[in-house]
Amino acid sequence: MTTYALAVDLGGTKVEAALVADDGAVLPGSRDRRPTGAESSSEQLAGSVREVVRSALGALPDGAALVGVGIGSAGPVDLTEGTVSPINLPAWRGFGLRALVIEAAGEALAEGVPVILRLDGVSLAMAEHWVGATQGVDNALAVTVSTGIGGGLIVNGRLLAGGTGNAGHIGQVQIATRTPGETSQNVTVEVLASGPHTVTWAKMQGWHGERGEDLARDYAAGDAVAVAAVRRSATALGEAITSVTTLLDLDVVAVGGGFSRVSADYLDLVRATIDEAAYNRYATRIRVVASGLSDEGPLVGAAALVHQAHLLG
Amino acid sequence: MTTYALAVDLGGTKVEAALVADDGAVLPGSRDRRPTGAESSSEQLAGSVREVVRSALGALPDGAALVGVGIGSAGPVDLTEGTVSPINLPAWRGFGLRALVIEAAGEALAEGVPVILRLDGVSLAMAEHWVGATQGVDNALAVTVSTGIGGGLIVNGRLLAGGTGNAGHIGQVQIATRTPGETSQNVTVEVLASGPHTVTWAKMQGWHGERGEDLARDYAAGDAVAVAAVRRSATALGEAITSVTTLLDLDVVAVGGGFSRVSADYLDLVRATIDEAAYNRYATRIRVVASGLSDEGPLVGAAALVHQAHLLG
Repeated sequence: MTTYALAVDLGGTKVEAALVADDGAVLPGSRDRRPTGAESSSEQLAGSVREVVRSALGALPDGAALVGVGIGSAGPVDLTEGTVSPINLPAWRGFGLRALVIEAAGEALAEGVPVILRLDGVSLAMAEHWVGATQGVDNALAVTVSTGIGGGLIVNGRLLAGGTGNAGHIGQVQIATRTPGETSQNVTVEVLASGPHTVTWAKMQGWHGERGEDLARDYAAGDAVAVAAVRRSATALGEAITSVTTLLDLDVVAVGGGFSRVSADYLDLVRATIDEAAYNRYATRIRVVASGLSDEGPLVGAAALVHQAHLLG
Repeated sequence: MTTYALAVDLGGTKVEAALVADDGAVLPGSRDRRPTGAESSSEQLAGSVREVVRSALGALPDGAALVGVGIGSAGPVDLTEGTVSPINLPAWRGFGLRALVIEAAGEALAEGVPVILRLDGVSLAMAEHWVGATQGVDNALAVTVSTGIGGGLIVNGRLLAGGTGNAGHIGQVQIATRTPGETSQNVTVEVLASGPHTVTWAKMQGWHGERGEDLARDYAAGDAVAVAAVRRSATALGEAITSVTTLLDLDVVAVGGGFSRVSADYLDLVRATIDEAAYNRYATRIRVVASGLSDEGPLVGAAALVHQAHLLG
């Protein structure tokens, strides 16, 4: 009999939930989403979570077993407390998301059913390993290049959560010279390579577009600033991956997220940077591949926390 | 009955071997060392390894059991091939160190006795976890600040080797702005923080000493350039640790190596940088502690590859 996990993905712009079968398929009709956003109050956010949880659970077929709940959340998280403090949801700091999902699920959760919270990037790494581009790989990084830059790690064939659940936060890795007295914020790969930051940089160079889609169009047309902006992003990402695989000696990195498709050669530019920047040559052996996930990836990853629980560290 | 491991530590200036008991104690009289060095030929290096291996094995008490061989080597290494390519021993590139040690040990090695090669920083992380400053810790980094900067990682309560054995190479993590077209060599923490590089930087600022010991003396006396040089090193190390624990969410970092004792407050300076630089606040929870190892640490770590084999990833 097919078993289902309730998958919940909390992000800066929306929260989604769905039922995901043990083969990684999202149950048709079970997927629901509600907006979140930086302006939302804590009660509005909680309401959105309750709605998508109840909506998804309502689609559970008669007689089917709900074997667990997997929650992927924008970080930071604190697994020791079961709380989340998403950077882009200021109303929630140290918020008990795990407890909220349990409350919202109510009687649909049988006693002893596991409810597992992890960072969203970590969930995505699980999805890549289960049904995506890093299947069968023991040392892999999954990276998303979008509004922000997030990631998750599989090492020694197991998920790497870190002491409080925040392992995988590649976006805040420092790759440029920091000004003493400041945080590393302005010298991290996220600030040097994300979609919005790259658009902002291009506009400062005199480019007249507004969005990543405009940058993609102008890059394809050979606009000099658009080309420079895309290369700058790919170079920063390549440098961060070089640092990470120098430290961790990885086999594969799967790169996804909308901005990673800003140009057809974005991954080629990333690869070229790794080849150029790596001082220790073993670091160049990492394979740079496109994500194997659809837009269901975050939900599939949250479900993998249940269906692939043997990979949890 | 006490069991012994043959421990071998290959570095850029010397190779050492000893017998180490299953409680982490080096057997008195079993420790031997021979020089290595960048000028040595491959045959000279091999001769030194053979000598220390045979000398150590000759100290095995009558009737005592040799239960394994642990080899820690300067990197990079290639565990899939059993070879080493130490940066500071140019005569050895892709050299079969594991096979050489097996040949040198000869009949002292009973059939089926494990011979385990790892990066030296990785071995040191094992030693810190076994008898040093990270005992009982599931997510820990061991760092050595000396001629170079090396490291090793314990994550999820297990040793992290990486796909080819090179995980832990923190010295080549990039923490400053790279010039396009170049490798990251000149912007890594090793080049910004190691003992020799820090001495060179101080001399470029007009300081008149020659060695780390001179820098230590002048720092203690309040010499402005010596103070700036030591702070520059500790700041770079703090930034690298911030990046690493942002990525891996570690509990503890144990800092050792001669240059980490250049000033009494070196670890305080590292801690202050982490507190200042970390953008994600969970990264500041890492405890910065002094290494708990003596100068036997590298040998104890190599032996830990045998006696603590359950930690191997």
